[in-house]
Amino acid sequence: MNPIQLLDYAGVAVFAATGALAASRKELDIIGFIFLAGITGMGGGTLRDLVLDAPVFWIWNPTYIIVCAAVAIIVYFAAPLVEYRYRLLLWLDAAGLSAYSVLGAAKGLAATGSATIALVTGMLTATFGGVLRDVLTGEPSVLLRPEVYVTAALVGAGVFTVADISGLDGTLAALISIAAAFLVRGGALKFG
Amino acid sequence: MNPIQLLDYAGVAVFAATGALAASRKELDIIGFIFLAGITGMGGGTLRDLVLDAPVFWIWNPTYIIVCAAVAIIVYFAAPLVEYRYRLLLWLDAAGLSAYSVLGAAKGLAATGSATIALVTGMLTATFGGVLRDVLTGEPSVLLRPEVYVTAALVGAGVFTVADISGLDGTLAALISIAAAFLVRGGALKFG
Amino acid sequence: MNPIQLLDYAGVAVFAATGALAASRKELDIIGFIFLAGITGMGGGTLRDLVLDAPVFWIWNPTYIIVCAAVAIIVYFAAPLVEYRYRLLLWLDAAGLSAYSVLGAAKGLAATGSATIALVTGMLTATFGGVLRDVLTGEPSVLLRPEVYVTAALVGAGVFTVADISGLDGTLAALISIAAAFLVRGGALKFG
Repeated sequence: MNPIQLLDYAGVAVFAATGALAASRKELDIIGFIFLAGITGMGGGTLRDLVLDAPVFWIWNPTYIIVCAAVAIIVYFAAPLVEYRYRLLLWLDAAGLSAYSVLGAAKGLAATGSATIALVTGMLTATFGGVLRDVLTGEPSVLLRPEVYVTAALVGAGVFTVADISGLDGTLAALISIAAAFLVRGGALKFG
Repeated sequence: MNPIQLLDYAGVAVFAATGALAASRKELDIIGFIFLAGITGMGGGTLRDLVLDAPVFWIWNPTYIIVCAAVAIIVYFAAPLVEYRYRLLLWLDAAGLSAYSVLGAAKGLAATGSATIALVTGMLTATFGGVLRDVLTGEPSVLLRPEVYVTAALVGAGVFTVADISGLDGTLAALISIAAAFLVRGGALKFG
Repeated sequence: MNPIQLLDYAGVAVFAATGALAASRKELDIIGFIFLAGITGMGGGTLRDLVLDAPVFWIWNPTYIIVCAAVAIIVYFAAPLVEYRYRLLLWLDAAGLSAYSVLGAAKGLAATGSATIALVTGMLTATFGGVLRDVLTGEPSVLLRPEVYVTAALVGAGVFTVADISGLDGTLAALISIAAAFLVRGGALKFG
């Protein structure tokens, strides 16, 4: 498994965990955990693939579904042990946002060659799973929180796009840009 | 018209009726009834077809649209006669959920051959129309109600997938699995 | 640039402006303005292209993205000068609704030749951007307001479909039907 693929599963897993934590806050049953974990973990990438007219990633590789279900089951049993579930949700969401902004930009750039599209698919992929999670659970959208959210996604997508066009190695470009996005969003969560 | 096709129209019709009942609760005009009936009746199947990269079912067979519009017009005139509209909405929703969980699984299984995908497309198809209806009318999502909802969809999709892989006749498999889903969801509504 | 193309950019721009005004009401940062402007300006057309299995319009012509971003930046600086932002939002929304109902019907009719589909894609294209805007900002959906909303979209799509099938010149048909839709929605806003 190459580093980008690993990053992809990691992004799905942390977003899935935020969906499961949201299910926990709503006291859903275990199937509700799995459902919300799947929607949150795979929603952003699904929208990205639909607009790019690419095959939807989890249809042809059900491993993503297994990852979401496994994460949901772990959170189902572990969540009662966690004291600050919303706080944890926000931090995991920041990690997922960072990974997905870069993966979305990478796929948009590869499919179209356009830097503008890369920025947009980066932002859409990073934000849409969390938006679905918040809408389905009736929570105020994380988009509306005072801390920079979409901006962090834009930073991740932007740094990656510049690095990639400059000819930087893909894995290195991905790591640097994920770190940049997480710095922005994490900094805002910590000090915002 | 074969039994599966008939079931398909029936599923669209009962979901459309729940959308029209929701429009009635919001006191919308008749076009609002038709709009919500269409979104609720065809939303789940539309998402299913998009992720499977199949042609969207109502684009090439506008009969589905006519069915939704007809149901909406009937409900528009009949709804004032119904005393417990939300109760009726929940029972029709249970019927639509059952039919759509199986039809979604059948289409997912036929397109990919993967049992995992069949479970997911079954759940998505069964729940997405109702989710759209609730989001558009600003009601708390039916997903969050204490009675098992997604679980019933999973049961319908799961029983069908096992029956189909076991080589059971398609129509028989569909009827058994729809009954199983309805038993779970109806039982939860009645006793939950 | 032909008149239809110009109309298309104009429709995107006014819907984008309503998204930016909604961002202003929620006191988002400038990236939040651009994000909501883009989602509102391009959301309806994106859904239209997905269900018609057409290439998503902004993927292959990023000018639409630039238009949304430019409108968002202008609104960001101009919004504090506007006294009745929600009122302005409703009127711009009426203009966007009118343009998009016709453009949606035109594309649906061209792709399928079906008048029924043209009515549906007209309504979907005209309403979906505003629905996304309202859901993302947690506002009650404009669909639920007492004034005719979906009906205006249906009038625009219907007049265009009849005019086009009757062989009227495309640009003339578009202008007449946009005016009809705006008359219905604007009249309802003014006197409703």
